[in-house]
This record gives sequence, C-alpha cells and structure tokens, in this order.
Amino acid sequence: MIEITANAVADAVIQTQSQKEAPVVIIGSGYAGYNLAEALRQRSAEREILLFTADDGANYSKPGLSNALARDKSAAGLVSETVLEIEQRLDIRIHARCKVTRIDAAQHLLYTDLGEQKYSKLILAQGAAPIRLPFEGDGAEDVLSINDLNDYRCFRNKLEGSKHVTIIGNGLIGCEFANDLSGKGYEVAVIGLTGWPMDRLLPQEIGRRLQTNLTAQGVDWYLENTVEQIEKLAEGYCLTLRDGQVITTDLVVSAVGLKPRTELAETAGIACNRGIVVNGGLRTSVTDIYALGDCAEIQGQLLPYIAPINFGVRALADCLLGRPTMAQYPLMPVMVKTPALPLTLLMPAPDQTGTWQVESTAMGMRGLYVSADGRVLGYALAGDLTSERQQWTDKVAAADELSVA
Amino acid sequence: MIEITANAVADAVIQTQSQKEAPVVIIGSGYAGYNLAEALRQRSAEREILLFTADDGANYSKPGLSNALARDKSAAGLVSETVLEIEQRLDIRIHARCKVTRIDAAQHLLYTDLGEQKYSKLILAQGAAPIRLPFEGDGAEDVLSINDLNDYRCFRNKLEGSKHVTIIGNGLIGCEFANDLSGKGYEVAVIGLTGWPMDRLLPQEIGRRLQTNLTAQGVDWYLENTVEQIEKLAEGYCLTLRDGQVITTDLVVSAVGLKPRTELAETAGIACNRGIVVNGGLRTSVTDIYALGDCAEIQGQLLPYIAPINFGVRALADCLLGRPTMAQYPLMPVMVKTPALPLTLLMPAPDQTGTWQVESTAMGMRGLYVSADGRVLGYALAGDLTSERQQWTDKVAAADELSVA
Repeated sequence: MIEITANAVADAVIQTQSQKEAPVVIIGSGYAGYNLAEALRQRSAEREILLFTADDGANYSKPGLSNALARDKSAAGLVSETVLEIEQRLDIRIHARCKVTRIDAAQHLLYTDLGEQKYSKLILAQGAAPIRLPFEGDGAEDVLSINDLNDYRCFRNKLEGSKHVTIIGNGLIGCEFANDLSGKGYEVAVIGLTGWPMDRLLPQEIGRRLQTNLTAQGVDWYLENTVEQIEKLAEGYCLTLRDGQVITTDLVVSAVGLKPRTELAETAGIACNRGIVVNGGLRTSVTDIYALGDCAEIQGQLLPYIAPINFGVRALADCLLGRPTMAQYPLMPVMVKTPALPLTLLMPAPDQTGTWQVESTAMGMRGLYVSADGRVLGYALAGDLTSERQQWTDKVAAADELSVA
Repeated sequence: MIEITANAVADAVIQTQSQKEAPVVIIGSGYAGYNLAEALRQRSAEREILLFTADDGANYSKPGLSNALARDKSAAGLVSETVLEIEQRLDIRIHARCKVTRIDAAQHLLYTDLGEQKYSKLILAQGAAPIRLPFEGDGAEDVLSINDLNDYRCFRNKLEGSKHVTIIGNGLIGCEFANDLSGKGYEVAVIGLTGWPMDRLLPQEIGRRLQTNLTAQGVDWYLENTVEQIEKLAEGYCLTLRDGQVITTDLVVSAVGLKPRTELAETAGIACNRGIVVNGGLRTSVTDIYALGDCAEIQGQLLPYIAPINFGVRALADCLLGRPTMAQYPLMPVMVKTPALPLTLLMPAPDQTGTWQVESTAMGMRGLYVSADGRVLGYALAGDLTSERQQWTDKVAAADELSVA
C-alpha cells in the first residue's frame, strides 16, 4: 500500500515536470539568433526562450565591421546592446561564453560546458567561420580574419602604428575592407586568385572600374596570384607570392570566404552539405531542430546576407509557435559597401545561365545578366545607376519569380 | 498643453520603471553565495535574485578538495550541480564566467564584462584568494594552489605520473593535503615556517603527535624552514631551502593561507581591513551592500569556515527581505580532515589569552586552553577524545559566551 502511494506521488511529480514545456533554445548570438529571439517574444510574451552563445553575446551589426573605420567606430562603439540589456528587453535567458558540445536529438537535450539543458525546439544559428588558408612561414598564424567583434578589436589594436595592410581575397568582403582602409589613408595591397575584384558577382568591366577607383585611393592589386609564404620581420611581415613578387606589410588580413559552422549539427546526425541542410521552412532533417542564417543551406543555397535572415525569422517564429509557415524570399538585392564605386547587385538564381551585358553612362555602369532568350536574370549596378535598383528588380521578378519556398 | 501631457506621460513611465524593484545581486558562487541564494528563495518565491560568478559556477564543496583523493573524487565527480541545474532549482539567474569590474554604490549599479546591472541589495561573497609567496627560480610559476575546482582539476592532471609531492605550508590545509596524498601512497614533503604542524591552532604536544602519525604514513617534514628557490628539472623540480637542504619533487603545492578578495569593495569605497569590514548583521560601511563568507571580516575576525557562513546566511536572508537581524554565532568547533590523527578544535576568541594544558590518554589527547583564573577558553581534541567535543564546548560556553552579535 505504502509503495503504491509513493509511486503515485512520484508519477504525479514526473507528470508535473513533463507538463512544463521545455524552452525554445537558440544557439548563436548573431543577427539570426537575436532577431529570432525578438520575433518570438513579439509573438509570445510567455514562451520561455533561452540562448547559448560561445562569445560574450554583445549585440552588434556584423556587416558594419567592413566599414567601421569610415564611421570611426571602435569595437566598443559597435556594440548596440549588452547581454544584460538584451535579457531585460526581450525577457530571455542568455548563457554567454558557453559552448554547446553535443545535441541528443532523441532526448531533446543539449550538453553544454555549463551543464545539460532540455529544449522543445532547437534553432542552430551559429553562423560561419572564416576559411583559413594554409601558408608557409612563421608569420602564417598572425594572419587576421575579421569575422566578429573580438576579431575586429584585435584588428584595431594591430592597426595602431600600421601603415600598410595586405588583404588576401578579392571578393566582396576583401573589397569592402580595402575601401575602408584605403579611405582612411592606409596603403593597401589586395591579393586575389582571380582576374578582377568580386569576379563571382561582377562582370569584368564593372570589376575593373572598382579596381581603378580603389587604385586611385591607394590600393595595389596582385591578381591571379596567391600567397605562398609569410615571414615575420623585426616589424611587420614579408609575403612571397606565387609569381615571385614580394610584399612588405604591417598587417595581413584574410578575407577568402566563410564556411558554415556545421560540426555540432553533423555530430548530431543532422544532414549537412555545404551548410546545415534546411527546407523552405528552415527545418533540418531532424525533428524539432531548425537552422537559420549563415550556417544554413536553404534549398541548396548559402545566403549569407541580412535580408534572407529577416524573411526567414518571420516564418520561423510563426512555425516555432505552432503555425507552420514556409519562408517567402522576395528578390533581395545586395548593397556593397564600396563608396569608391557604389554597387548594388542582384545575383541570378544558381540554376540560371546567361551572359553579362554591360553599358557605361555618365552616371555609372549597368550590368545585366541576360538569358539566351533575352530575359534579365540578375544585375550589377554601379555609381549613380544604383538608383535603378527597383526597376531592374521588378524586371527580374517579372522574368522569373524566384522563390525558394 | 502638449508639453505638459508629454511630461506627464514621461513621469508615469519613469515611475513605473522605478516601481519595478531591482534584483538582489550576489557576487560569487561559492558556499556563501549559493547558500544565501537558496535561503532567499526559501523565504521568498518572487524576489528576483541574480548571481555573478567569474568561474563556471559549478556547485561543489570546497572543504572537500583537501580529502578528495581519499574519496576517489575527480574534479568532475566533486560537482554536485551545474549552473543550469541551480538556475532551475532556485529560479535564479546566474551569469557564469562574468567579471564584475566596478560598483557604483550611489547609483546601485554594477559594471560587468557582460554589461551594466542595477541592484537593490548587493552581497559580496567573492571568497579568498591563495597567498602566493615569491620564490626564485624558473619553476616558481608552476607552484599550484588548490583553492577551487579548476585548481583541483589542474592538480589532478599534474598528479598523474607523480610520485613525490611537496607542500609548502604546515597549517590546517597543508596538513589535510599531506594526509590525503600520503594516504594514497604519494611521498610527501611538508615545508613549514614554524616548529610543528598547525602551530597556530594546536599545542605543541598535539602538533607533534600529528607530525609523528603523518611521518608514519610517508610524510617528511622540513620545519622552521622556507623555500628559497625552485628550479625546473627535466622531470619535476628541485627546491633549495633556506638551511641549504635540497628536495627533488614532482609537484609543488602551496598552502600558505588565503587573502580575502577585497579589491572590488575597496575601489567602491567600502571599508576594508584584512577582509571586507562588516558588522554582526553582515553590513558593510556602504548602504545596501553586504559581505558574507571568506571575503568578510566579521567584527575583526576572519572566519573562513562553513559554520559561520551557515549562521550568517540565515540572518542575512531575513535582513535582505526587510527583517533586520543580527547573526548569532554559537561556538563553532572545527573538524580537521586528518584521519591520521582526528582533530576537533575550538579556537579561543581573539581577545582572550591563556595557556595550553595537554593530557594524553589511551584514547587520544586533550588540549585545553585555560585562562589565568582557570576558565577553559578553547580546546584541541585528538584521536578518540574528539568524542568529548560537546562537553568541552559547553564548558567554554559557560566560561564565556562568545557572541559576535
């Protein structure tokens, strides 16, 4: 009799515990993580939201790292909100400086270096890590990547007393940093694998114009080239390039691209390709686990930009609160932060082929990516012609409504 | 008119904000901090409680560090509760790995490396840091202090493959570690400044008995001596003592005492002496700021033991919830974890003088600290005579009711 009573009490306790729904847990404190938390809180005052972040969780605009010099922003000046402020504002719980080490998807359980945590829904928003190229030489490990606020703090510290900065990578981020640094009077060298700046996004003519304009403000270009060796000097570094040229520089910044952080997802058995594979509803291959932002591969595409996160956040917040929704992605032009040649781009969908048609006018340049049958699939607008953004976006939309959903 | 209305609205907003009481904030996640949090929660289900800790906040019994080998406890095995479990159990908010850098007492505001935090009441429970003696030689910086779980983890790692351990310090903690290590078969050397083990707490005869018993299980003693130099060897270390003796050892542990952490309090203008000065109600010199545990100096005394924290916690929890209370400290005997010679001590009050009277019986040793007029002011019981603890405590209480209140 006593045993039965005790069991009944124990059962009641277990039932009560299981009735308390586990929180929605977000991993990552970047734009994706915090904006999702905010969207969830806007839709539900009560839902328990918990966020883990490996860094200090300060809120800042990551795209702003590549034009922060022009805006005279220190690392501290880029912080818009501390962890303590965000917790208060959103009524969420943030575990800063905490690493999630393992996901037990069957148990809906996270293992972290502060203990274990149950979740009802889990959102991976861990972003992407800089790709690090292997270089020869004793200076290789000093190469900076500027991918978060700590990196930027380190960059600004090392920039003190530097005059010459070398950027490895001639893509969008490399060009933005080249513009920002040269605009502040630093001598800049850009080393790139391909023939012109931002070759994957721009037709050659517009890439050349960007190159010319940046050259005029103090950027030297070493294109169709690579760094083979980086040696420390008494002050600064000596870089030896593949073609034998030698560059002496104070600081080396790598901007050769990002790799989605997929390790945690992979070890949990979540399908990953280049990123964490999600459908239009940002669901991964595992129940109750979602991915958002730079770590996600949305129907085959990496979309490491702000706009796709904004559209994804709205759909995902609805979905997490029990209203299944597919994200609707409109056409999302990208504004490149190169004031030396203002650029607005709309990339064609990955499965569409065409050729660039480029016109120069007194106002700027207009590159249209056109299919064989004459439809405009994408564009690159330069200079004052960036004002034509909306009309060409409409044209592309009319030609082929791109929807990832 | 519009201006007046706007002001009225603003006033209402400000009033509403100020009506929401700021949390009780505790700094420190040791025995004092967590037990106070628990006592507060037991007395109030609603009061917002926030705790900052510089380490990972895992709950463990610090006194258990000095006999953990005998209990076959790894660092992980000593953890009774993670931060995530404590947050759940007590419904409090813990910011682990977060440093409080400044107190603005006038504003009731903390500055931390995760942002700013208001408090209504602030409790400093930061404990004490190991005193580090300066030694000559390239091995000086490898000397371990075992003052928290991270230290213990490091100690256990270094103990792997070690056979001989040197302990600097012949006080209570040094003797407990000497007992624990020698009990597990390690060869141990203890180097001490004074003439016998625990000379500040034990009469010479009982100290000698402890020394003899520990010698029998493999402890070598270097008393009335100091370490002058510590040099690294290919494996282990070479210590040169003041009298010229040389010790070769695998690992050096320092146990020469603790210094209350007072820096934060001092920079906030809080009165500090050896510790943070508090009255019987654990109030510091600054309004709404309290100190508890090893960082506090209670009416002139450092009381770095568990029992005084227990009594302090109860009084302070009442006080923080608006029921001003002075802590009542009964006589609190200390049990020393030296199984080679079990010891129970009751130290005389600091302002009382007397002499030791020591008896040896078949059961053990009885040291009584007796005043000139024959009152028993304190005691040290050894061996099976520790069973006389209560009767001698009663005698001391009768002789002079010690009350810090």
